[in-house]
Amino acid sequence: MGSPVNRVSMGDTWSRQVHPDIERERHVQSFCVEELTNILDGGAQNTALRREVESIIHSDPELSLKDNYFMTQNERYEAAIKKKFHVQMLAQRLGWSEDSRELYYANRSLSGDLGLALQFVFQKALRSLGSEEQIAKWDPLCNKLQILATYAQTELGHGTYLQGLETEATYDAATQEFVVHSPTLTAIKWWPGDLGRSATHALVQAQLICSGAQQGMHAFIVPIRSLEDHSPLPGITVGDIGPKMDFDHSDNGFLQLDHVRIPRENMLSRFAQVLPDGTYIKLGTAKSNYLSMVVVRVDMLSNEVIPLLQKACVIAIRYSVIRHQSRLQPSDPEAKVLDYQTQQQKLFPPLAKAYAFHFVAKSLLEFFHRSYSSILDRDFRLLPELHALSAGMKALVSDFCVQGAELCRRACGGHGYSKLSGLPSLVTRVTASCTYEGENTVLYLQTARFLVKSYLQAQESTSQRSLPQSVAYLTAPDLAKCPAQNVADFLHPELYTTAWAHVAARLIKDSVHHLQTLMQSGADRHEAWNQTTVIHLQAAKAHLYYVTVKIFTEALEKLENQPAIQQVLKRLCDLYALHGIMTNTGDFLHDGFLSGAQIDVARKAYLDLLLLIRKDAVLLTDAFDFTDQCLNSALGCYDGNVYERLFQWAQRSPTNTQFLRNELQKTVPVPHVHSYLSDSL
Amino acid sequence: MGSPVNRVSMGDTWSRQVHPDIERERHVQSFCVEELTNILDGGAQNTALRREVESIIHSDPELSLKDNYFMTQNERYEAAIKKKFHVQMLAQRLGWSEDSRELYYANRSLSGDLGLALQFVFQKALRSLGSEEQIAKWDPLCNKLQILATYAQTELGHGTYLQGLETEATYDAATQEFVVHSPTLTAIKWWPGDLGRSATHALVQAQLICSGAQQGMHAFIVPIRSLEDHSPLPGITVGDIGPKMDFDHSDNGFLQLDHVRIPRENMLSRFAQVLPDGTYIKLGTAKSNYLSMVVVRVDMLSNEVIPLLQKACVIAIRYSVIRHQSRLQPSDPEAKVLDYQTQQQKLFPPLAKAYAFHFVAKSLLEFFHRSYSSILDRDFRLLPELHALSAGMKALVSDFCVQGAELCRRACGGHGYSKLSGLPSLVTRVTASCTYEGENTVLYLQTARFLVKSYLQAQESTSQRSLPQSVAYLTAPDLAKCPAQNVADFLHPELYTTAWAHVAARLIKDSVHHLQTLMQSGADRHEAWNQTTVIHLQAAKAHLYYVTVKIFTEALEKLENQPAIQQVLKRLCDLYALHGIMTNTGDFLHDGFLSGAQIDVARKAYLDLLLLIRKDAVLLTDAFDFTDQCLNSALGCYDGNVYERLFQWAQRSPTNTQFLRNELQKTVPVPHVHSYLSDSL
Repeated sequence: MGSPVNRVSMGDTWSRQVHPDIERERHVQSFCVEELTNILDGGAQNTALRREVESIIHSDPELSLKDNYFMTQNERYEAAIKKKFHVQMLAQRLGWSEDSRELYYANRSLSGDLGLALQFVFQKALRSLGSEEQIAKWDPLCNKLQILATYAQTELGHGTYLQGLETEATYDAATQEFVVHSPTLTAIKWWPGDLGRSATHALVQAQLICSGAQQGMHAFIVPIRSLEDHSPLPGITVGDIGPKMDFDHSDNGFLQLDHVRIPRENMLSRFAQVLPDGTYIKLGTAKSNYLSMVVVRVDMLSNEVIPLLQKACVIAIRYSVIRHQSRLQPSDPEAKVLDYQTQQQKLFPPLAKAYAFHFVAKSLLEFFHRSYSSILDRDFRLLPELHALSAGMKALVSDFCVQGAELCRRACGGHGYSKLSGLPSLVTRVTASCTYEGENTVLYLQTARFLVKSYLQAQESTSQRSLPQSVAYLTAPDLAKCPAQNVADFLHPELYTTAWAHVAARLIKDSVHHLQTLMQSGADRHEAWNQTTVIHLQAAKAHLYYVTVKIFTEALEKLENQPAIQQVLKRLCDLYALHGIMTNTGDFLHDGFLSGAQIDVARKAYLDLLLLIRKDAVLLTDAFDFTDQCLNSALGCYDGNVYERLFQWAQRSPTNTQFLRNELQKTVPVPHVHSYLSDSL
Repeated sequence: MGSPVNRVSMGDTWSRQVHPDIERERHVQSFCVEELTNILDGGAQNTALRREVESIIHSDPELSLKDNYFMTQNERYEAAIKKKFHVQMLAQRLGWSEDSRELYYANRSLSGDLGLALQFVFQKALRSLGSEEQIAKWDPLCNKLQILATYAQTELGHGTYLQGLETEATYDAATQEFVVHSPTLTAIKWWPGDLGRSATHALVQAQLICSGAQQGMHAFIVPIRSLEDHSPLPGITVGDIGPKMDFDHSDNGFLQLDHVRIPRENMLSRFAQVLPDGTYIKLGTAKSNYLSMVVVRVDMLSNEVIPLLQKACVIAIRYSVIRHQSRLQPSDPEAKVLDYQTQQQKLFPPLAKAYAFHFVAKSLLEFFHRSYSSILDRDFRLLPELHALSAGMKALVSDFCVQGAELCRRACGGHGYSKLSGLPSLVTRVTASCTYEGENTVLYLQTARFLVKSYLQAQESTSQRSLPQSVAYLTAPDLAKCPAQNVADFLHPELYTTAWAHVAARLIKDSVHHLQTLMQSGADRHEAWNQTTVIHLQAAKAHLYYVTVKIFTEALEKLENQPAIQQVLKRLCDLYALHGIMTNTGDFLHDGFLSGAQIDVARKAYLDLLLLIRKDAVLLTDAFDFTDQCLNSALGCYDGNVYERLFQWAQRSPTNTQFLRNELQKTVPVPHVHSYLSDSL
């Protein structure tokens, strides 16, 4: 199972021979790749299970991804639906239960290219916001695909700001029903996945109106299509929203509701209820409705966002040892592009992030699991920190994953622009995560609000409450100047974690002072907030960066029994922290915490790390252990046979198979252009 | 002609009524929009001519772009070819000559969505590298579309590094022919536009071998397809390279040459000749072959790159006054998103760049025209500066245009992800410009080499030669500390230009010292260069930023007779310079040139500017005067009727017209998904 052979595409003749340029990269191994893979998988038994699932998935011709790049939007959609039902059938046959690791691995090996992904979001929301009875009723229907559900929050004119949604659910005590209605054009639900052609039910977020009073946003289960013949139910207008940057396999749709009646029981009622007579009872806080978004944000990082960056790193780094360009010495042959400092500078910070975020997502998930059950039991004490951290981390991680994936794509030169490289779809897909589940700027500002509150709380000497863990550094002793003097000093995790804490604390303080100064000079609170948001953003980002550095260093400490792995990951951690300093030198120089001379020393430490990581770079990408089939990249396969694969894949372009007349295809008609040319000749 | 009416889409009923939210933005005008449009066009007569051409183009149904978002790759290709020949026919009928303004405006109004774009690149190369006889022979054939030509440089395994190309052209004195050949898989020409299905001729860059000696890269005209029936000629294998991130309308292709014979006259011979007996005569320098790339780089900025950023700004800013989200005051209605500081921070720096780069491209073009004819006459004195400046500026401008366009896209929230917004295709198209015509990192390093040379020249006190104009600041007197004390000080063009010169000079010095230190400690010259490239990049970018600031301030000085325009553009220039400082504070703080306190003052100046520009933002986008048809955006139309248009355009999605069964389409078949659902029920 541990042999590299299983990572190589079956069926490709080239795969029998690994390209010597990439083979050489794996010749001397400073650490055991398999051991690192096990750590990433959370144990050797998980690695084994994952490979077993991958082998089932990849040997099934119904589940091949190889034609993806040549399909139209409709073909992609139909293939994804077909795959979803096929996997469901496999799961039944093989006894893979709901929420099982097997299904998770199946999804991973198919790169999420399955239809009906929103089923899962619907279920997460149901389990967070629904009563036990509601969960018992609807959850099994979803599991068995007896209903197809989606989550309908965003509207044509309204997004992240939940209170601005216009859809109304008015309670009619006479019939004990809610009347769900889109009062305007801008109230039409817009964007929900699986809505355009697939969903039979939607979880609709709407303004609750009962006994004449507006009670804010609540979630309602609305049947939208017939279970008999799939036609839209009365009062429902539904369809596809048209072409997008990616997600061709998903039918993002619109939904217009014309006084649609649903039973009283269809309002999710863990945190609020409407009694038959129209009495409204609140059981949670105003924020409890956000819980389902917290759940999804925590989840999406490991499942949807971070793997896209990891794959981009795998593809770009492998290709960079095959691709030769220019000479390092006039007498040498052309050099591998990964030997150029600029290429290392492009690819290794994203690689470091790909590892850092693995541990960040794991830590966030653990925090989530510690707090979720108490929140479901209506103990909301941990919710503010969980909300601030998950919102901010979703923003930071998705921002960096997009940036990193695009860097990887561009680092592949022209071929990174070909869809056959696999990189364009990674980029266009991950970039969506900056917007869905909360627009990133709005999310950073949620974190900033929490930071301002925490800062003010820390200032109150009378306060006996201790600060939440993630902001405890606001009351820790702080150095005015960094003591680092040489390169080795900058490689101490404690040193750079402290440096990041210093900068984050200073920027939070700066933002609070800016806010207070504006208010003292007469601005009102809200205007002052708005005029400080650029500074709040900066503070929130520094805080989140500090948290990620801290998590990464803590994860390293736990690896003391695996010194070779610890060493190679520590280099990535050092690089992660120092790259953050190098791209934000102004924040460290501003108050003299670092001097210009110290920055130069840090730069030397950073550049030296690039050379050290160079040796292990390919092995570090191998450790993610993505199969060739799941990477679906002509540039990124394990065997390094890039050009043969690119040439052969290109021949499958519909243009070549349908329209061309050349040495390869003698018999097809004369191309279109010639008719014009003959006219003009 | 000057009335806004002509900017509004004909035929849309909503266009009769401009949305009040955007109308209000145009109510008070601090400057005359038409006057600014005239400046951008280079005179009122050009504006009038452009609108005349636009009106011809947009009233012709053959030239509509409205179905673009719903077409397959092949449909896009065929439509683009059809449009190209249609425009050619119009040009003949209306007497628009080659290289005329009319044809330029026609291309602009069609957003470059025409086939056979490489014809023009072939011609530029021919005119730069061909002899007068060769130009006389081939240029008219191109003009009349009697041949379809492309420019074939990039190979499957080789890109920006010209010397690494493998294609060979071996002279055979016996027949007076060149034998053009692809000796390996990696030598196959890959990426040239118009090659996959269209071109009849290719300008092939190949290693010249004559009388047994390698003479480096030269350009050869190779016929590749029959002019009779368009079939590939003997020895030619040609086809499409498959799907890409964008450029669906172009048939980027591959070309494999199997000992293809062409006559001796087909080698372009302005700078080198092969005599009938195989004697090689060099007339230029080793660099003269690069001239055609200089020409194309200068040209592409105004024609292909900068308009994409300008359009993205138009769309995002217009949409941001229609889109309301959240509240600035709890008692207010939801605010226009453009009133949020964070939205201004996203959109106004790209807007400032969109204007800055207009003047940068103009200035670069003027420099090019001053030097081009002397270079053609083999006086190469200005070539090094022209090469360094055009290479670096191509890199800087394309990098910032991608970054800015993507910021604009994301600033539109979810709708920015819909192709109907027009933004995805602007982003995926402009991002290609970071790679084609020279990969940006390689280009920055070309600039860096010139800077290192110039710096060393400046240090030689014995040198009597003056430095080239763009690096003259390296010998100018320099201040150790910036004298700015208050916000007003930071709004002096001389102050911030000097600040940028200071930082650029310091970073160039830093890079040279780093290089020298490594060499003194034993590294060899090439290794030391490689280990300094990250620092070289930083220095080159600072230098180029300085040049752009200087050009923008100089352009402002010429507007003293139009004070209102001068004022509004000066704010953009101030913002451009200060935004550069705010995103690179570390470079200004490093040696104490600015203090932390001064950075805070600069930040205040910067944030104040955002508010000032807010008032004029929509007018500044109107001044670009893009027609609705050419923007082709549901979000960005002049009338602001965003949601009506988005809703209506979505209905045209093939999914809705072919597959859906809902209130809108009662008669189409039951969707695919239901067959699965029925099985599982």
